[in-house]
Amino acid sequence: MLDKFFRPKSVAVIGASTHPNKVGHVILWNFIRGFKGSVYPVNPSHDTVLGLKCYKTVKDIPEDVDLAVIAIPAEFVPSALKDCGKKGVKHVIIVSGGFSEIGRNDLEDEIEKIRKKYNIRVIGPNCIGVFDAYSQVDTLFMPRYRLERPRKGRISFVSQSGAVGSAILDWAAAKGFGFSKFISYGNACDVDEVDLLDYLEKDKTTGVIGMYIEGTRRGRELYNSLKRITKKKPVIVIKGGKTKAGSKAASSHTGALAGSARVWEAMLKQSGAIIADDIRRMFNYSRLLAEQPLPKGKRIGIVTNGGGFGVIASDALEKYGLELANLDKKTIDVIKKHVPEYAVVKNPVDLVGDADAHRYEIALDALLEDNNVDVILVLILFQTAGVQSEIIDIIASKSDQKKKPIIAFSAGGDFTQVHMRMLEKVGVPVFDSLEEAADAIKKMYLYSVSVGNAE
Amino acid sequence: MLDKFFRPKSVAVIGASTHPNKVGHVILWNFIRGFKGSVYPVNPSHDTVLGLKCYKTVKDIPEDVDLAVIAIPAEFVPSALKDCGKKGVKHVIIVSGGFSEIGRNDLEDEIEKIRKKYNIRVIGPNCIGVFDAYSQVDTLFMPRYRLERPRKGRISFVSQSGAVGSAILDWAAAKGFGFSKFISYGNACDVDEVDLLDYLEKDKTTGVIGMYIEGTRRGRELYNSLKRITKKKPVIVIKGGKTKAGSKAASSHTGALAGSARVWEAMLKQSGAIIADDIRRMFNYSRLLAEQPLPKGKRIGIVTNGGGFGVIASDALEKYGLELANLDKKTIDVIKKHVPEYAVVKNPVDLVGDADAHRYEIALDALLEDNNVDVILVLILFQTAGVQSEIIDIIASKSDQKKKPIIAFSAGGDFTQVHMRMLEKVGVPVFDSLEEAADAIKKMYLYSVSVGNAE
Repeated sequence: MLDKFFRPKSVAVIGASTHPNKVGHVILWNFIRGFKGSVYPVNPSHDTVLGLKCYKTVKDIPEDVDLAVIAIPAEFVPSALKDCGKKGVKHVIIVSGGFSEIGRNDLEDEIEKIRKKYNIRVIGPNCIGVFDAYSQVDTLFMPRYRLERPRKGRISFVSQSGAVGSAILDWAAAKGFGFSKFISYGNACDVDEVDLLDYLEKDKTTGVIGMYIEGTRRGRELYNSLKRITKKKPVIVIKGGKTKAGSKAASSHTGALAGSARVWEAMLKQSGAIIADDIRRMFNYSRLLAEQPLPKGKRIGIVTNGGGFGVIASDALEKYGLELANLDKKTIDVIKKHVPEYAVVKNPVDLVGDADAHRYEIALDALLEDNNVDVILVLILFQTAGVQSEIIDIIASKSDQKKKPIIAFSAGGDFTQVHMRMLEKVGVPVFDSLEEAADAIKKMYLYSVSVGNAE
Repeated sequence: MLDKFFRPKSVAVIGASTHPNKVGHVILWNFIRGFKGSVYPVNPSHDTVLGLKCYKTVKDIPEDVDLAVIAIPAEFVPSALKDCGKKGVKHVIIVSGGFSEIGRNDLEDEIEKIRKKYNIRVIGPNCIGVFDAYSQVDTLFMPRYRLERPRKGRISFVSQSGAVGSAILDWAAAKGFGFSKFISYGNACDVDEVDLLDYLEKDKTTGVIGMYIEGTRRGRELYNSLKRITKKKPVIVIKGGKTKAGSKAASSHTGALAGSARVWEAMLKQSGAIIADDIRRMFNYSRLLAEQPLPKGKRIGIVTNGGGFGVIASDALEKYGLELANLDKKTIDVIKKHVPEYAVVKNPVDLVGDADAHRYEIALDALLEDNNVDVILVLILFQTAGVQSEIIDIIASKSDQKKKPIIAFSAGGDFTQVHMRMLEKVGVPVFDSLEEAADAIKKMYLYSVSVGNAE
């Protein structure tokens, strides 16, 4: 039902503009750049925009239009929406603001009437709309130099706040995280978080769903959808406005009745959703669950080239209720045979400062074979010259076996950051905080337990 | 007494090498590049190294030598140290490994005898030594493309682990954090964490001390030093090996008796030290305490251009026991006069998505004047085109007044990251997690209370 929002064959951009600073210009440019279907600019003042023939109204477009994006001042939106109805467009994203969020409920009511009359599904108004990494539907009207677009991947993210959503997407893109879909639904005059969850439930390229939500008008349905979906796919939720101060702020922001923190927390927990305390943690959980197989248990094997980080990792894992695996004697023997005497072959396996990628490979292979190890945490310090970039390929090839979750940690400046992004891009989640790595592994483990994959 | 480690007039690099991969080469190169005093390579196999006349032994150097750095295989270290003694060198950093950490206590005992005989102070062995951002003493032997060096600043950091230290320094440099001194003291055959703390207590360019420690041989002295120093300067400690698993790992790492977690925690708390759970948090606290004035209370004023982040910030602040300031009526009136009607002038002050730097300036000025506001948290989303780079100058100029702590938050990709680094470099601590910002503000507030500056 909502599929045309993400996989339309043809798109009209209403409000397409020749002025580079205009929202309608940026959106048209996005479509021309990435989208494979037909794109039609609509604007009565132009004959052509960005080299494309421009139409006076959507009704003048000679072909069928699957999706229209409306980016014009609020007062003109009802009339444009009516044109869409007459043209037979069934899916419309209204990015324009100036509706109920500033007290113009009258305008929003008008939209509601028109969309019902013509049986149109609407995302918005007052939103930044949709980004689909696969189809390159992209209504985000922030310039690409400010808001980078992420690579293809398995995380989809639904945000009630456009600003939160855009910052997250930009940040995630720079980090190398992979996305399927992003949706900012704004005032939700029609399509809301429940509709979107239900759609993403069946979306094949969505492996994990993330969500920023301040309030809902459909608590019961939201609960039911979450309850059903979390059995198939992890859903990770950041609830904005869960304290008194936050809930006050939320009511001036989205006007959402943020509701009692306790009620929300109880609801989310019972529904099987994973609650994230902040945005980074939401992505920590998402990345692990999207990219790695579920663990069979909570016994962690650590490999490192810096003893101190082995210590910090051990502390963090224990703090989060995880266990350091008791390595099998065979594992220890195999590793010992191939590493220098001064390496410390226990758990953490300390390959010491002069370790190269080869030494890592031996340790990783051994831990993958060891039935006492459920999850592998590999710490890599790129400050020492021994570790060459080939370590990326080695870790990727182990991770690609999908036998056990492999999670990486590193910390450092530009040289390190480049390698962290490379790891992320080949599907190995990499952390710069061992505390956060432990927290994420714990959440992954708990999800694995909840779906009957681990004890 | 330890001053010559950080401000020598002349330095000998024993083990200076013509081979770019050798430790002694990297160290010599570091000194030539940044250090303003005399530099003497020592190596019996070379006549010149990196264009400098090379001496057979340290004794052959015609002038006095304040500091010698020894970077040769362990077995040759005692003899080189003896030469230092004969030459009258009183400060020696031994970066070489291969001593007690691999069971060669005999070699370390020999060093101890020699250094006592000649009255030499030794840092190391088995360490990466010293980096001083002011004097450019730099014995870190990791290549600069892998380990970036931080700018001058007020944070000093003492690390028992070389790997932890080097990763931290590299990471901090890339983030734009400012340092005074970094010391990795390794096996601590002579100079240990207590000596270094006592030195940093009086060091004028050190405003905040950070510390990574797994164990100590001088618990009582450490406590006394901390107790005394924390009254003057904040000391932030990461204790490695505070869980059972971590403490086991620590004993194979530094051989340190990590000691009971409870005893350590009680000792650190009673001493007035700030305990950090991980490295990032240590820097969060350090940056705030190094760069910003202490707050007079815990009432926070928030300025944002994205409502959702105002909500998340409010949640985070309340979670950490901080308060949203009740803005003075005058503050609200002043801001309202200068911003569009659709801006939400409460706390958080939501300047909304089209805010420019000017709008931020008005809000910041008003909050600086408002006696109900103790700390200003300014959230900036660079994804929208309204915010130009001039906002950096504006925030910096408010921060430079040192009237109240100003802390920034932003989140995003490369464009945002560049601006975050700029803010950091002009002394405005900037976070990419509101949770962490709230945590750090709380710690700053508690320190302010502990020194009688806030209630």
